[in-house]
Amino acid sequence: MISIVILGSGNVAKHLFDTFMEQKEVKILQVIGRNKVNLSYFKNAVEVSTDFNKIKDAEIYLIAVSDDAIAEVANALENKKGMVVHSSGSVPITALSHKNRRGVFYPLQSFSMGKTIDFKSVPICIEAENTADVELVGRLARMISNNVQEVSSKQRKSLHLAAVFVNNFTNHLFHIGHDICEDHNLPFHILLPLIKETVQKLDYMAPLDAQTGPARRNDISTIENHLNQLKNKNYKDIYALISKSISEKYGKEL
Amino acid sequence: MISIVILGSGNVAKHLFDTFMEQKEVKILQVIGRNKVNLSYFKNAVEVSTDFNKIKDAEIYLIAVSDDAIAEVANALENKKGMVVHSSGSVPITALSHKNRRGVFYPLQSFSMGKTIDFKSVPICIEAENTADVELVGRLARMISNNVQEVSSKQRKSLHLAAVFVNNFTNHLFHIGHDICEDHNLPFHILLPLIKETVQKLDYMAPLDAQTGPARRNDISTIENHLNQLKNKNYKDIYALISKSISEKYGKEL
Repeated sequence: MISIVILGSGNVAKHLFDTFMEQKEVKILQVIGRNKVNLSYFKNAVEVSTDFNKIKDAEIYLIAVSDDAIAEVANALENKKGMVVHSSGSVPITALSHKNRRGVFYPLQSFSMGKTIDFKSVPICIEAENTADVELVGRLARMISNNVQEVSSKQRKSLHLAAVFVNNFTNHLFHIGHDICEDHNLPFHILLPLIKETVQKLDYMAPLDAQTGPARRNDISTIENHLNQLKNKNYKDIYALISKSISEKYGKEL
Repeated sequence: MISIVILGSGNVAKHLFDTFMEQKEVKILQVIGRNKVNLSYFKNAVEVSTDFNKIKDAEIYLIAVSDDAIAEVANALENKKGMVVHSSGSVPITALSHKNRRGVFYPLQSFSMGKTIDFKSVPICIEAENTADVELVGRLARMISNNVQEVSSKQRKSLHLAAVFVNNFTNHLFHIGHDICEDHNLPFHILLPLIKETVQKLDYMAPLDAQTGPARRNDISTIENHLNQLKNKNYKDIYALISKSISEKYGKEL
């Protein structure tokens, strides 16, 4: 059994709360947060409080607040004996107080409001400063996920950057595709089988080997034709720049 | 029963051949191509020829060659009574000879060598110049796919452009993520659950509503931090430009 207190009441806190509530070997003692409306989500199941001076003694304090607020919340925990972990991709472990046993519990996933996540396949990146604490936070992580990885603060910073490319930026390219379809009375869902195939290939092929298209073939007439079709300045620039990056990757120049 | 001749012996021709061979209501009379080595793929199952003067009479001639070669192959079919269709995303129907009944049969998918495609879910975009021919090419398409759409040459041109964004360019972003992981001794597969969730959301959410990340939040300190981490000039430019495009989409300026 591991006793925990969750600090934070937003989207990530809710998802973590829901999955930990299902675990017999985890006891959530409290949820602490500043937002009373958000706290109502938890109050029928566990004790909630907006008072950072009334935090119970737990084995692990799990901070799930916005990056900017982590240091401040960590300060309120300085006198606690339990381990203090945050759940951010881009904040180093040293943002927590050196007076605590520190750690990180970073679920590498994009959490949407109202959509349940099956944590079993979510990679959880853990970090701690000694073997016993790696073991403790690792045990907590393995209760909900089959994909627990020890990742240093430096690696996590890069991982977060990579995640921005493959998630946020990819989603923007999907939006551009959506926009183009809408402009020409085409249903966006016509592109979904192609998108799904692009992703399925990653299971067995490196993206460098899977690359196709006009830039890969250095097919300049198609590229010019496409650039002429684009009216939106940003879209045109994105097309030209990614095409350049692809071409150069294969030793060509556009 | 529809009788067809396939012209071309490359990747798309092979995938179409394989799926049509499974259909009882399609009779492949011949595969015509210039590349003898490629033709050997078909020769045990049907008649093959490199001679464009020995093309049999069929109801539909299906041209599956590179965009540049379509017009030349079409010329060789000028005296045929059957309908002539090409399978390209970016070539207009008018690239075929006006002496023929013309059409388009464009499967919107990325075909990899050696990987079988389940055509049932592949959108097939069809076009023809009269109702009877739309019906004929539509009947051929519906034999292999449950997702047949009538799409004009103008729309198809835009669709092909959108496909470049959501498939080719997305794959390059996956490569950048792969590169960043490799540089920091992280396994790329740690990003796969995130990538799959990004795509699964498209089933019930427009990409504009699903957008998250530092650019969406206009979180300038994280953006600057990420830009400083990137050494590759193209990656840095891509990061800055897509972030700008996302921010402006939500009425902000970076």
